[in-house]
Amino acid sequence: MDPETKLPNVPLRRRTQTTVEFNHIPAHVYPQGTARDEDGVVSIAGVDLKTIAEEYGTPAFVLNEDDFRARCRALATAFDGGERVHYASKAFLTKTVARWVAEEGLAIDIASHGELQVALAAGFPADRITVHGNNKSREFLRLAVQSGVELIVIDSFQEIDRLSEACEALGRTQDVLIRVTPGVHVDTHEFIATSHEDQKFGFSLSSGTAFKAATIAATTPGLRLRGLHCHVGSQVFEAAGFALAAERLLGLWARLLEELPTLDTFDDASLANFNVLDLGGGYGIAYMPDQEALDVDEVASDLKSKVAKAADEAGVPRPILNVEPGRAIVGPSMVTVYRVGTVKDVEVSEHSSRRYLSVDGGMSDNIRPALYEAEYDCRVVNREVSGELIPTRIVGSHCESGDILVNDVLVPDDVQAGDLIMLGATGAYCFAMASRYNMMTRPPVVTVSEGEHRVMIRRETIEDVLALEVE
Amino acid sequence: MDPETKLPNVPLRRRTQTTVEFNHIPAHVYPQGTARDEDGVVSIAGVDLKTIAEEYGTPAFVLNEDDFRARCRALATAFDGGERVHYASKAFLTKTVARWVAEEGLAIDIASHGELQVALAAGFPADRITVHGNNKSREFLRLAVQSGVELIVIDSFQEIDRLSEACEALGRTQDVLIRVTPGVHVDTHEFIATSHEDQKFGFSLSSGTAFKAATIAATTPGLRLRGLHCHVGSQVFEAAGFALAAERLLGLWARLLEELPTLDTFDDASLANFNVLDLGGGYGIAYMPDQEALDVDEVASDLKSKVAKAADEAGVPRPILNVEPGRAIVGPSMVTVYRVGTVKDVEVSEHSSRRYLSVDGGMSDNIRPALYEAEYDCRVVNREVSGELIPTRIVGSHCESGDILVNDVLVPDDVQAGDLIMLGATGAYCFAMASRYNMMTRPPVVTVSEGEHRVMIRRETIEDVLALEVE
Repeated sequence: MDPETKLPNVPLRRRTQTTVEFNHIPAHVYPQGTARDEDGVVSIAGVDLKTIAEEYGTPAFVLNEDDFRARCRALATAFDGGERVHYASKAFLTKTVARWVAEEGLAIDIASHGELQVALAAGFPADRITVHGNNKSREFLRLAVQSGVELIVIDSFQEIDRLSEACEALGRTQDVLIRVTPGVHVDTHEFIATSHEDQKFGFSLSSGTAFKAATIAATTPGLRLRGLHCHVGSQVFEAAGFALAAERLLGLWARLLEELPTLDTFDDASLANFNVLDLGGGYGIAYMPDQEALDVDEVASDLKSKVAKAADEAGVPRPILNVEPGRAIVGPSMVTVYRVGTVKDVEVSEHSSRRYLSVDGGMSDNIRPALYEAEYDCRVVNREVSGELIPTRIVGSHCESGDILVNDVLVPDDVQAGDLIMLGATGAYCFAMASRYNMMTRPPVVTVSEGEHRVMIRRETIEDVLALEVE
Repeated sequence: MDPETKLPNVPLRRRTQTTVEFNHIPAHVYPQGTARDEDGVVSIAGVDLKTIAEEYGTPAFVLNEDDFRARCRALATAFDGGERVHYASKAFLTKTVARWVAEEGLAIDIASHGELQVALAAGFPADRITVHGNNKSREFLRLAVQSGVELIVIDSFQEIDRLSEACEALGRTQDVLIRVTPGVHVDTHEFIATSHEDQKFGFSLSSGTAFKAATIAATTPGLRLRGLHCHVGSQVFEAAGFALAAERLLGLWARLLEELPTLDTFDDASLANFNVLDLGGGYGIAYMPDQEALDVDEVASDLKSKVAKAADEAGVPRPILNVEPGRAIVGPSMVTVYRVGTVKDVEVSEHSSRRYLSVDGGMSDNIRPALYEAEYDCRVVNREVSGELIPTRIVGSHCESGDILVNDVLVPDDVQAGDLIMLGATGAYCFAMASRYNMMTRPPVVTVSEGEHRVMIRRETIEDVLALEVE
């Protein structure tokens, strides 16, 4: 059986070439301390995944606390201090995770009223919270101001008015950034530069709207303009796109440094406080073995020097640089463990077939393959496998043919019902976007650290679903 | 301002041409009894949506019970009896909805262990439950058999063994259908016919696997083969695709009628019981004003006569015909009401701009635009609007630029923050696939009937989210 003949359109780089290679865990895709033990069982941080499956059932998310914390620390070091690194909590947020972030000295980004409530419930220090959102309600803004959050990133003219009202009502002054759309979009290693941006976030740089918003915010009662914010994309591995955005923002910055001092209420102290450049998130991770992991030190060093150079060229003081990684922290820290239920070989042409391995989760716990055509690496974790590699699709249990977790992968043909499979790098936007489609309730999230395991989020039950119904 | 100049690529048929037309509610897209009252407020079944928004907050799903029940009855009449019409509960399932389905005399389809649990919790008669799924666990099969479900649709060889074990352990005989992939795929008005099918469901007709599965099921202890099942697609408006699938299945049927009597344990009674042809679901609805609503009577009548003809031509007795509509029942019965929070005009080129209306829900309560590029109709419901039509995008409040509910629509330019907007035909796969992304918890589902309103599903809270965390 020659897979080349069968799947000519699948790039070779995506493929495990041998069964030995399939049994090997690619370290850069999985949490630190993921290893196949002598008995063939894969463990993470000293906890074997067979035990996890037996104790908590499947599917289950497994989060390596040590890995999560290590990534926090690496980013804090690379970007000159935890207060510069804002964990983008939309990727995955629980009270415990918020506490880890706080303990590692990082700041946190929240993007909704609910995320703010969770961060506050965790006791996250409000003065390290930055607030995002294109449609912040008065209630949300009031809670943010009242709690004493560090920064609110202004996204519309209406928000300036609403925030000012909240600040006046509460007798507070709120530090703010202006979200700017700089016309730079990055996807992995390439970026495109445009002038106009057709999206809901921010104020356009090219149209002059961002300039206007900044000058209004600078003189609106209750608001203190601290700087500018932008976001360029996701799965970014190089500094170039960020640097171009920074360059454009620093052009605006220079214009503002001329304009702001001419405004009545903007004094020297105000000018000194205008010093934060937040370049957002989007730092990439390796989902697949052939992708390289982000070199945090290199990208940070490159970015810092490019921003410094751009500031010098724009003739403005070098700003404080904030970044907002979410996926780059939690993404590789977590895996999902599924149990294979059904094995089916399907003829896909006269001369070839595809194996379908059905697992006990699916698009309810990971919508990303269906939503973004996202790719995931998968490994058998309860034993070493020894079969011949055959074209395989990992599918879920939902009543929908698009319920695919791994579209096309070579898997040894001795995988059978009852085997355990893990998908790597499922920490970001999997549990966070989980649904109860087909009444398949959310899996638990189990944390592992130094040989210990404990449940962080318990498995949802049908009783949880039924509890919402009023009869 | 000439919208043609601005958006040359948007088909005219998608557009409301005048503000008067925008204020008009297209009856075939919305639940019966949806009307704009004299004061300009839209009501459904005599309940005005301003009241709903005030009492329950926004976003909120509003489900017209009368409309839901009427669609059940229309389908039951068209297909010669409620027991032939299986509500595909994956589209939207609560205990109350299951009871409505039961009261209208329909059968129900469930596709997971959880859906079965909900149907049973509602007291739905087990002998009108059909069980689907590509990866049914032993536990799920055992509950199904033990409860006395009417039919289990067999999807793999492994399932035949598992089901037989469950039946033997419980001392029961279970009626089953064989799910066949007939190589017919329908999308709206067109279908494609293939031989091989590359998907997780069913047994292939062309490869002989379906024939084999049927003969095995026919002679496996505990199983009683009742017939064949297939599913051809979604948003289907015409009988032709179903009919081609029926024709192919009846070819297999004829072969089975020759083969089955030769098998040892298959007697005359068994042969008489082999009489169910289930052609699945996929009946379409009008999401947009320029789409026609399904003509239930016409499609049923056409389908029945085509199946009868195909049976006659295949020389087999005319089978009992089952259908499985989900969307066609609940889809148009429900709307989602949102409140506009932020209005923003964004330059998209030198000469044109787009208005962004941000509402207080988004991809967490309706993932379908992001997942399937699904289109929805929208109307302002708290008043008549009077502005000029301008190119508009309705977006949600999530921290994601793809969080779009209505991508491109002409909306009067006097819509402002605080206005209420409804999206039509959100009954199917919106609440069912809802997530808590960005900690935006699920909206309530409010039912309306004859001037009365009551909550069926209460709004989720952050406390519900936090309750899952173990500290």
